[in-house]
Amino acid sequence: MVQNRLERGLEMMDRVVGPSAHHVQDSLADIAPDLGRLLAEYFGDIYGRSGLDRKSREIVTVAALTALGKLPQLKVHIKAAIHVGCTEEEIIELLMQMVLYAGFPASLNGVAIAKEVFCEINQEGEGTNA
Amino acid sequence: MVQNRLERGLEMMDRVVGPSAHHVQDSLADIAPDLGRLLAEYFGDIYGRSGLDRKSREIVTVAALTALGKLPQLKVHIKAAIHVGCTEEEIIELLMQMVLYAGFPASLNGVAIAKEVFCEINQEGEGTNA
Amino acid sequence: MVQNRLERGLEMMDRVVGPSAHHVQDSLADIAPDLGRLLAEYFGDIYGRSGLDRKSREIVTVAALTALGKLPQLKVHIKAAIHVGCTEEEIIELLMQMVLYAGFPASLNGVAIAKEVFCEINQEGEGTNA
Amino acid sequence: MVQNRLERGLEMMDRVVGPSAHHVQDSLADIAPDLGRLLAEYFGDIYGRSGLDRKSREIVTVAALTALGKLPQLKVHIKAAIHVGCTEEEIIELLMQMVLYAGFPASLNGVAIAKEVFCEINQEGEGTNA
Amino acid sequence: MVQNRLERGLEMMDRVVGPSAHHVQDSLADIAPDLGRLLAEYFGDIYGRSGLDRKSREIVTVAALTALGKLPQLKVHIKAAIHVGCTEEEIIELLMQMVLYAGFPASLNGVAIAKEVFCEINQEGEGTNA
Amino acid sequence: MVQNRLERGLEMMDRVVGPSAHHVQDSLADIAPDLGRLLAEYFGDIYGRSGLDRKSREIVTVAALTALGKLPQLKVHIKAAIHVGCTEEEIIELLMQMVLYAGFPASLNGVAIAKEVFCEINQEGEGTNA
Repeated sequence: MVQNRLERGLEMMDRVVGPSAHHVQDSLADIAPDLGRLLAEYFGDIYGRSGLDRKSREIVTVAALTALGKLPQLKVHIKAAIHVGCTEEEIIELLMQMVLYAGFPASLNGVAIAKEVFCEINQEGEGTNA
Repeated sequence: MVQNRLERGLEMMDRVVGPSAHHVQDSLADIAPDLGRLLAEYFGDIYGRSGLDRKSREIVTVAALTALGKLPQLKVHIKAAIHVGCTEEEIIELLMQMVLYAGFPASLNGVAIAKEVFCEINQEGEGTNA
Repeated sequence: MVQNRLERGLEMMDRVVGPSAHHVQDSLADIAPDLGRLLAEYFGDIYGRSGLDRKSREIVTVAALTALGKLPQLKVHIKAAIHVGCTEEEIIELLMQMVLYAGFPASLNGVAIAKEVFCEINQEGEGTNA
Repeated sequence: MVQNRLERGLEMMDRVVGPSAHHVQDSLADIAPDLGRLLAEYFGDIYGRSGLDRKSREIVTVAALTALGKLPQLKVHIKAAIHVGCTEEEIIELLMQMVLYAGFPASLNGVAIAKEVFCEINQEGEGTNA
Repeated sequence: MVQNRLERGLEMMDRVVGPSAHHVQDSLADIAPDLGRLLAEYFGDIYGRSGLDRKSREIVTVAALTALGKLPQLKVHIKAAIHVGCTEEEIIELLMQMVLYAGFPASLNGVAIAKEVFCEINQEGEGTNA
Repeated sequence: MVQNRLERGLEMMDRVVGPSAHHVQDSLADIAPDLGRLLAEYFGDIYGRSGLDRKSREIVTVAALTALGKLPQLKVHIKAAIHVGCTEEEIIELLMQMVLYAGFPASLNGVAIAKEVFCEINQEGEGTNA
């Protein structure tokens, strides 16, 4: 059976971004459902392309969001980067590199978000292990 | 013999950025030589670190500069990305991906710079082959 | 009797922006009263001009603030847009359109603010009806 | 016969943006044709929606591009704004209003682009009349 | 005789910004004369205040324009900074400092503009001396 | 005994930025200690230079951070500005001036941060006097 663009997009968001994808969609459901649909479809359009592996796609996203200071989305995509296989060390490295291109404030604000994400992940990990 | 931070940085810029590194240094030589020195040293500090491979470092730089619209530096780093092994296809892919995070204008301006760089490279290639 | 620029500006802010105008002025009263005065005067200078109707003035302001990510002011001006006659649907439409020009993060952050504003308005409405 | 998303998008760009739409597509044809396709499709997705009239869509775009300083695209969309019925006076009014929200430099750079566009249009007009 | 806000503003622009002030006003005269008037009046409002000396006012303007990448205005205000007594060395120092807060691209683009300005000034100086 | 770059940098941060410098270093200690080290070293490199006095260095930093909307760092550097001798009046003056170059939202967000800082300082002052 043919899968439509929306279904493909939602599945791709789920695979790349993980559980945060649902939170984003849920937050749009009552106020701007069409924006949620476009987000899923466009995400699927781009991430469904070959030519750049998924891990590279997430690190460039993290870099762009850090440079632009889009912090809520940076949080989602640091989680996504880890979800597709980046290590915490790699994320810190790229946030440090942003010092050269966007200055210390962009980099420091990015590291503060990374710290939140790493803490949440470690707490979940401990919760699971207990 | 011990190599100092400046020498290491200049060597690293040379290895990663290629010939454009010299143009940047030359343009600063008479007006702000200390800025040229700091650029080389800080570049060496960051790119000399392990934890992220050189190709990944260049694609995140290209992404950040595209998002920020810093076009002269984007030109330098698209060249650098190719210099360290990125393909033209990979660069176009990441510039397209920026549509999602920074909008079409950022992406289109990035592609216009990429076009200039790819043309220059192809002309040089033809020149060499002739 | 002649009304001076400050009085005209405050009256214009009141008419366009509604109650939030007073909160902005109050927040500046003890720390930077002259900034409050300039804000009112310059607002009056611009919004007092013919050549663009008040509703158009507010939607372009909402667009600019969304693109720039100036969220506290975006909240004030989404309220103002509704105050001068924009519908919630029109505001969501323009926030969605920002995807094309500033990317999803700008648009999503704008929608989150719109959601806050619409909730506050609906609660006030219910309070009034009770 | 069913028109697909790409055809609808190209037609919409043609109707809203006018001849500049073709220049943008042509400039992408050899370097990033898929970006050209996505641009048309997404443009069609957004501008094909009801809820905001075409003239309002163009003035918010001009405002956002002025605030962000995306000058090549601002040129395209000032032309588009005129193409869908905005007057030169309305465009100058909104560029002036940006002083309040993005400062004089954003506004002055926008006016410089508007000047170029108005000159081109007037020259074409004279050419046609001759 | 009472001097009005516009006259005071134009005089202040003349005193602080020097000859470039006239170029800005001239460029606006036929397309957006009211924007030229507001620019002069608001400039006069701010620069006419006590509380910060003129030289400090110009170095903070140069810093802000460098950080924001507003290059045409940066050129005007580097000239203005020299006009009110800043040395070339002081300007280079502050452009270098921007590396920390806005990254190398902002700083390098600022230095490129400073180089243009210093060259123009030196050529004029030689012309005068000849 | 020779003091190394890190020690010099930390001492300089301490002298210019005051107690906030330690909070920044502490927040990085467990997540990105090398970024803390680079911050101190680069800060020392720049602020250790002659050519611009310390007070001028802090006011240009406050201006740049206001223009860029980097609010957590703006808070740190408004405190630093006061620490090196700026008056509250001078800070408000420069934040007001930013209206011209970055618009009211940047300026108003800066004043809100200044208000927080001035309140904290006054409370500490009262605490000390009690």
